[in-house]
Amino acid sequence: MHLPLGYRYAATYAGIRKDARDDLGLIVSGLPAAAAGVFTQNRVQAAPVKLSRRHLTVSRGAVGAILVNAGNANCATRTDASVALACCRSAARLLRLRVNQVLPASTGVIGVDLDPKLIVNALPGLVANLREDGYSSVARAIMTTDLVPKEAFGEIKLRRGTVRIAGMTKGSGMIQPRMATTLGFVMTDAHIPVAMLRRMLRHGVERSYNRISVDGDTSTNDTLLLLANGASGVRPDPKEMTAVEERIAAVMEELARGIARDGEGARKLITILVSGAATDGAAERIARTIANSPLVKTAVAGSDPNWGRILCAAGNAGVAFDPRHADIAMQGVPVCRGGLAVRFSEPELKQKLDAPECEIRLTLRGKGKGQARFWTCDFTEGYIRINASYRT
Amino acid sequence: MHLPLGYRYAATYAGIRKDARDDLGLIVSGLPAAAAGVFTQNRVQAAPVKLSRRHLTVSRGAVGAILVNAGNANCATRTDASVALACCRSAARLLRLRVNQVLPASTGVIGVDLDPKLIVNALPGLVANLREDGYSSVARAIMTTDLVPKEAFGEIKLRRGTVRIAGMTKGSGMIQPRMATTLGFVMTDAHIPVAMLRRMLRHGVERSYNRISVDGDTSTNDTLLLLANGASGVRPDPKEMTAVEERIAAVMEELARGIARDGEGARKLITILVSGAATDGAAERIARTIANSPLVKTAVAGSDPNWGRILCAAGNAGVAFDPRHADIAMQGVPVCRGGLAVRFSEPELKQKLDAPECEIRLTLRGKGKGQARFWTCDFTEGYIRINASYRT
Repeated sequence: MHLPLGYRYAATYAGIRKDARDDLGLIVSGLPAAAAGVFTQNRVQAAPVKLSRRHLTVSRGAVGAILVNAGNANCATRTDASVALACCRSAARLLRLRVNQVLPASTGVIGVDLDPKLIVNALPGLVANLREDGYSSVARAIMTTDLVPKEAFGEIKLRRGTVRIAGMTKGSGMIQPRMATTLGFVMTDAHIPVAMLRRMLRHGVERSYNRISVDGDTSTNDTLLLLANGASGVRPDPKEMTAVEERIAAVMEELARGIARDGEGARKLITILVSGAATDGAAERIARTIANSPLVKTAVAGSDPNWGRILCAAGNAGVAFDPRHADIAMQGVPVCRGGLAVRFSEPELKQKLDAPECEIRLTLRGKGKGQARFWTCDFTEGYIRINASYRT
Repeated sequence: MHLPLGYRYAATYAGIRKDARDDLGLIVSGLPAAAAGVFTQNRVQAAPVKLSRRHLTVSRGAVGAILVNAGNANCATRTDASVALACCRSAARLLRLRVNQVLPASTGVIGVDLDPKLIVNALPGLVANLREDGYSSVARAIMTTDLVPKEAFGEIKLRRGTVRIAGMTKGSGMIQPRMATTLGFVMTDAHIPVAMLRRMLRHGVERSYNRISVDGDTSTNDTLLLLANGASGVRPDPKEMTAVEERIAAVMEELARGIARDGEGARKLITILVSGAATDGAAERIARTIANSPLVKTAVAGSDPNWGRILCAAGNAGVAFDPRHADIAMQGVPVCRGGLAVRFSEPELKQKLDAPECEIRLTLRGKGKGQARFWTCDFTEGYIRINASYRT
C-alpha cells in the first residue's frame, strides 16, 4: 500500500504540551488540493474551527496545507481567533500560499491561552523538514490521551490508473461526533471536483464518524478534512466515482472504529447492530442510546451478559417499538427473544465477552427495514482515572 | 417530627436477593388513601409498573397498600404480569382489600424470573408484623446499590390542625427519571381529593425527581406514589392547599437530592444552576446536559476546575445561546466570564471543590429569564466497579 502522491508531512515539538512529545504537525499538498470539511455542531466552537470553515469558503475549497496542534484547543480565550490567524499567516508565507489556503486545527485543553510564538517559531523548521514519508509523525503528533496513532489506507485501481487514499485521526475522549468529530485528515491523490468531494465527505461521515461514541460528549474542536490533489493524474470517470466514494468511506470507517477502540480507558471495541426499526434514523437513535448507556458499557467491561440493560437503554431512545418483538444477541449468542430471557450458558458467554471485540445485535422484528451500525467501547475505571486529572 | 397518622409498615427477608437483607416491604393505610402515581417513560415497562397504573385507574385512586420488593425488577420475563398480580391478590386477601387497592412495585435485575411463592409465603408474617413505627425498615428493604436509606419528612400547621408528610425513596444507578424515577413513596395524613393530589404530584416531580441524573439511564421500573389518607382529620382549606403542595414538593426534592448524593460510587452532590436562558425548558436542557457529561462529572471527582468541559457540555444541549455571554462559577468562584477564562487561584478552588457538595452556576446573560436547578453526582471509579459486576 502506497501513500497518496503529492503530499508531504512534518511534525515537531513546539513546546505546547508539557511533556516533550511532538505537538505540531503540517500536511502540505504540492498541487492545490480540492478540500471539503465537516466540523463540530457544538454551539461553542473553537477559533480554528471557525477559521477553517471560513478559509474553505473563501478559497472555494482549494487548499494547500493543514496546520494542526495538540495540547491546546485554542478555544474560549480572548486571543483564540488572532492566534489561529497569525499561525496560518506564518505558514502561508513560508509555503508561498494564500492565507486562506491553510486550514488550522487544534485539540487539547479549552480556555487556556495558546502562545502563537511557539507555533510561529517552530514553523520554519517544520517546513524545512517536510517529507513524503513523514505521514506517521503527524498521526502521532495529534494524539492527546490516545494510546495508539490511528491511520487507515486505501487504494483503488481505476481504468485510467491507480489512486490512493490515506487518513489519520485522533481522539479517545469527548467523543460523540455529530456531523464530524475530533480531528481527522483524509488525503487522496485522485482528481475529484470539490462539489463531488463535499458529497463524498458527507456520505462517508454518516457511516463512520457520526456512528461512534466514547462518552456522549461532542468536542468544541471536531474537524474532519478531506483533500484530493489529483497528483495521481487520475480523473475517475463518472461510473468510477461511486467506487472511489465507497473506498473513501471505508477509510473513514476504519479511522472512526479506531477511535472507539482506543476510547479512554477502553479494553474492548463494541459494535452495535440494530435492525427492523421503522427507519434507519430510528435504528440509529436506538443504537446511539445503547452505545451511550454507562450501564451497558460497564456490563461489557465486566463481561457480564446483562442484556436487561441493553433492552432498558433501547427503551430510552425515544423511539416507539414493541418490546415483545425485540431479540438480543451478544457475540452471536441469543440472550433475549421477544423481550424475554432465553436460556444460555452464562460461563460460556462470559468467556466470549472476554474478547477485544464485542458485538451487540438488537433485532426489532418490526415491519420496518431501518438499520444502523454504531461503535463504542467499554467503560472502565481507566476512563475515570484519565479524566479526573486530565488538566492538572 | 412525627410520622403521618394512619399508616403501618413492615419489612422482611423473603429470599429474593442473595444476601439476607430485607427485600420485601409493605405500606398499609388504615383508611383508604387517595393516591397518585407517576411512572417511567421507558418504552420497556416492568409488570408492576403496568399493574400499578391499572390499579390506580380502576380504583379511581383509592388505595390501601403498597407492596414492594427489591432484588428483582419483575421485568421482561414470561411470568412477570402473573407474578405481580398473584402477589397483589395474596396481599389483598390478607388485608381485606380489593386487589386493585394494592399497588405493586419492584426493583432489581431485569429478565430473571421472580418466584411468586417467595412473596406469597412471606406475606402473612409481613402483615402480622405491621407497625406504625416500621417506616425505616421499609426504607431499608427497598435499597439495592444504595449506601444509605433515603427518607424525608415534613409537617405543616394548618388552621384546622397539623398534617404530616413522610417520604422514602431508593436508587443510585440507572437514574435519569423522566416524569418519575426509581421507587419513591410519599405519605401524608392530610385529606386531599385525588384530583388535587395528582396535580401536587406532577408539580412536585417536576422540581425533584425530574431534575436529577446519576448516569442518564432511565429504569424500566421507576415509580413514585403519593398517598393521602386523611387520618389527621385535617382537610386543608383551598388557600392552604398551595402550602401543602409546596411542603410535599420540598419532601420530594429532599428525596431526589438524596438519590443524587447517594449515586453509585459518588462522593459529591453536584448542584447545577442555569439562568438567563430563553425559557425554563431551555435552562433545564442545558443543566441536564451538563449533569450527564462524564467529563464534567469526572472533573468534579478530581476537584479539577476544568470549566471548559462545562461550557463544552452546555454547547451540546441543542439550545441556542451565545457563548460570549456565558459566565460560569464553581463553588461561587467565577472561572469563566463572557465565554473566556477568568483569573482565579487554582489551589484555592481545588480545595473548595474537595467538599461533599459542589455548585456549578451557569449564567447566560441572555434576554430570557429561564432558569433551572438540577442535581447530579461526581463520577468515580466506584461507579464502574459497582456496575461491571452488578448481576454476577
